[in-house]
Amino acid sequence: MPPDAKPAPSDPPSAPPQDALLARLRERLGARHVLTEATDLAPHLAEARGLYRGRALAVLRPADTAEVAFAVRACAEARVPVVAQGGNTGLVGGGVPQGGIVLSLARLSRIRAVDPVGATLTVEAGAVLADVQAAAEAAGMLFPLSLAAEGSCRIGGNLATNAGGTAVLAYGNARDLVLGLEVVLADGRVWNGLKGLRKNNAGYDLKHLFVGSEGTLGIITAAVLKLYPRPASRAVGFVGLPSPRAALALLERLRRAAGPDLTAFEVMPRFGLEIVLRHVPGAQRPLASGHDTYALVEFASPRPGADMAAELEAALAASLEAGLAEDATIGASEARNAALWRLRESLPEAQSREGGSIKHDVSVPLSRLPEFLERATAACLAEMPGLRPCAFGHFGDGNIHFNLSQPPSMDRAAFLAAWARFNRIVHDIVHDLDGSIAAEHGVGLIKRDELQHYGDPVGLDLMRRLKAALDPADILNPGKVVALSDDPPPALP
Amino acid sequence: MPPDAKPAPSDPPSAPPQDALLARLRERLGARHVLTEATDLAPHLAEARGLYRGRALAVLRPADTAEVAFAVRACAEARVPVVAQGGNTGLVGGGVPQGGIVLSLARLSRIRAVDPVGATLTVEAGAVLADVQAAAEAAGMLFPLSLAAEGSCRIGGNLATNAGGTAVLAYGNARDLVLGLEVVLADGRVWNGLKGLRKNNAGYDLKHLFVGSEGTLGIITAAVLKLYPRPASRAVGFVGLPSPRAALALLERLRRAAGPDLTAFEVMPRFGLEIVLRHVPGAQRPLASGHDTYALVEFASPRPGADMAAELEAALAASLEAGLAEDATIGASEARNAALWRLRESLPEAQSREGGSIKHDVSVPLSRLPEFLERATAACLAEMPGLRPCAFGHFGDGNIHFNLSQPPSMDRAAFLAAWARFNRIVHDIVHDLDGSIAAEHGVGLIKRDELQHYGDPVGLDLMRRLKAALDPADILNPGKVVALSDDPPPALP
Repeated sequence: MPPDAKPAPSDPPSAPPQDALLARLRERLGARHVLTEATDLAPHLAEARGLYRGRALAVLRPADTAEVAFAVRACAEARVPVVAQGGNTGLVGGGVPQGGIVLSLARLSRIRAVDPVGATLTVEAGAVLADVQAAAEAAGMLFPLSLAAEGSCRIGGNLATNAGGTAVLAYGNARDLVLGLEVVLADGRVWNGLKGLRKNNAGYDLKHLFVGSEGTLGIITAAVLKLYPRPASRAVGFVGLPSPRAALALLERLRRAAGPDLTAFEVMPRFGLEIVLRHVPGAQRPLASGHDTYALVEFASPRPGADMAAELEAALAASLEAGLAEDATIGASEARNAALWRLRESLPEAQSREGGSIKHDVSVPLSRLPEFLERATAACLAEMPGLRPCAFGHFGDGNIHFNLSQPPSMDRAAFLAAWARFNRIVHDIVHDLDGSIAAEHGVGLIKRDELQHYGDPVGLDLMRRLKAALDPADILNPGKVVALSDDPPPALP
Repeated sequence: MPPDAKPAPSDPPSAPPQDALLARLRERLGARHVLTEATDLAPHLAEARGLYRGRALAVLRPADTAEVAFAVRACAEARVPVVAQGGNTGLVGGGVPQGGIVLSLARLSRIRAVDPVGATLTVEAGAVLADVQAAAEAAGMLFPLSLAAEGSCRIGGNLATNAGGTAVLAYGNARDLVLGLEVVLADGRVWNGLKGLRKNNAGYDLKHLFVGSEGTLGIITAAVLKLYPRPASRAVGFVGLPSPRAALALLERLRRAAGPDLTAFEVMPRFGLEIVLRHVPGAQRPLASGHDTYALVEFASPRPGADMAAELEAALAASLEAGLAEDATIGASEARNAALWRLRESLPEAQSREGGSIKHDVSVPLSRLPEFLERATAACLAEMPGLRPCAFGHFGDGNIHFNLSQPPSMDRAAFLAAWARFNRIVHDIVHDLDGSIAAEHGVGLIKRDELQHYGDPVGLDLMRRLKAALDPADILNPGKVVALSDDPPPALP
């Protein structure tokens, strides 16, 4: 049964109603917070990888939740779409406006409260993730969410996309770090779910509905986040392994050795380390010789007496002795730990310097990761000999960025023209292994039709019903995640 | 805007269509799995505390998901309500049928798969929680959910009610232990969301919608659960404290000392320990003298070399030295650890032997727990001098069972007649402190109108929209959690 809601047209309405809307918004927000000049709009229309270019009537910069609510209500009454933006660092086109209004949360950036006893932090959606981390640290606590864009992404966007990153293994996804939310709904009402409770079964869990909905069901304006004790000791190791299967066996062994003290298990292939050493200034070879697969592992504990270096060293020595690992090193200082992390974190940058790359952000059940890597690598090489697969990432979470670097001699544009073909090959294997074609970056525009293609039809129908129930006029970020209308998203470049 | 769905009448339809429905169900499920005899129905109409008595046309015992789907579709077509039951151990009347069909999940009890490498277990909804724990243990892993009813409650019910229990501090609520679900919807379709992924951002998170919805949005038929390494070492301590404020300070100190190794922090008052020693055979006084407040604390770690007794002893010694704790003991053996736990776990039983009790399952932000206890205790004593407050439970989660034992000389029925009056007093304070009136047991019937009274109107409207979107004909457990109709729930005894 299709939802009976009528989607709003993605083209803006004719001029006079637009002018009336903008005048109304200027009156409430102040003219300087309703941007319409092309140069002001430009950064909000661009998208991190340049895959899409948006268009918008205006960019709003409300000061607080009441102004957000006013703006959404005014847009809803004028039937003009609203696309919320935090740091606009997303990788799936989820923040790209296709007409209508961009609502920037950047001015809602206050840390409202820090409660070290309750281990919570209450923050507005526009706070930069690094500032949230710093506020937690200033209170002697840890907010563990950490990802490449942390200096510019904003917490509202992290929650709206259920961000992943490098701390998921020990602390979970962004969804797992939130206790309460304040959300502006599609009709401009405010849901106050800003509770800092560890247990709350008073009805349906509404916060999980909004987290990960990419601004299509509501606009998050504030959140109560969980804090943790800060690590007192950490150790970082870099391990050379013969295969992804060996990496999985090492993960299992370290999980049993360290339990919750195993805080990261990232993997990169031989090709990945080579291009980092080639392109990243200051990068130093961590192990004497080359290996098929590298694991970056971290142990960390808040226990004051913990000696993570000793525990990691013992665990890795046992793995070497068992013939599981081929070689390993442990950072002898925090500077050296950070240098080992940089080898992993600078891989996307190195890959972009190595030519065109076609990307996949996928997950499979942990125990099927080696099979996925073997099958997907073989299938892609069969499709295009000379291709250089670079599968890396959050191995411990079952989440791999299965990226493909172009054959060195090939034309970049000709390679990128094969994007959809490789998507089909890789996503077919992910689907066959009961995995997800959108593990941590979300759906946005770039995977909306892939989700339609692979998603369980009953699940997709449920998503459409939720969208229709919460945003029947399709005001909030229309056309993203699930489409109520049949408009195709813009084609890839 | 009220949802435009029409609720089904809670009275069953006239005889002939009922007979046709039962005939159809007997044909598919087999006559012996469609129970209509009063003696067969009785255990499914009763409710754990005897607060409600249900009525039903029949109890169905489907064999598998396909039969559940058939039964729900048949009932939906006949517009007959369906109440799902697992172990029927709930404490809020959520499983009480008010007409219609009881659908027992008891025969869907298979462990479908255990994957120790992926650290997941796939199980059908009717498996008894203790059997799920045992299946995990047989694979050398831990499924941490643990609660008093674990020998008879079933995992589907645990998930449908987002069960809490004694392992929430370290592992989270039932919601946090599930990766994927299979759900039969209100129209009999099956949503297959049975994925074992640690990261999945492919659209809205549907599983969190069904977890905690108490069978009102869908019927959970199977789940993929998270497993953890088993503890290699654990230590249990029993601590005498001068006040709840001191308990909070101790919690903060232990959290910093142990981090994720702090796996339980339960609290009981002086009166609570006294009645356990009075009524529970074999219960032994753990400390030489009496104290205002007792904390049961547990450290546990899967690290093979961990010595939790030494770490707990050091942490408690420092707390005694700091004047925070008045006295403390640590279990010298696993038998002694279990005996300390029994003091806490047998408190509800002791309280029921001590006369009538009026119960509240509430939570507040951790840092406001002492204030809640002080205010609520004073307010209740002012209302009824001689009352004996017995506030105990999952202090580390901010979740207190704020129970009131009757004055010794008072008539039991006269005391219980004050139930609603004390609810109002206690819940008003919870509400004022931004807490929850339904922390871990859920809403069901017993708190449906309290939720209506205290809930954020926008949040309640969202809940009704979700119900109307997923179950427009009000087939699934009608009248529980949020009511689409205005029928009042049965009054309390």
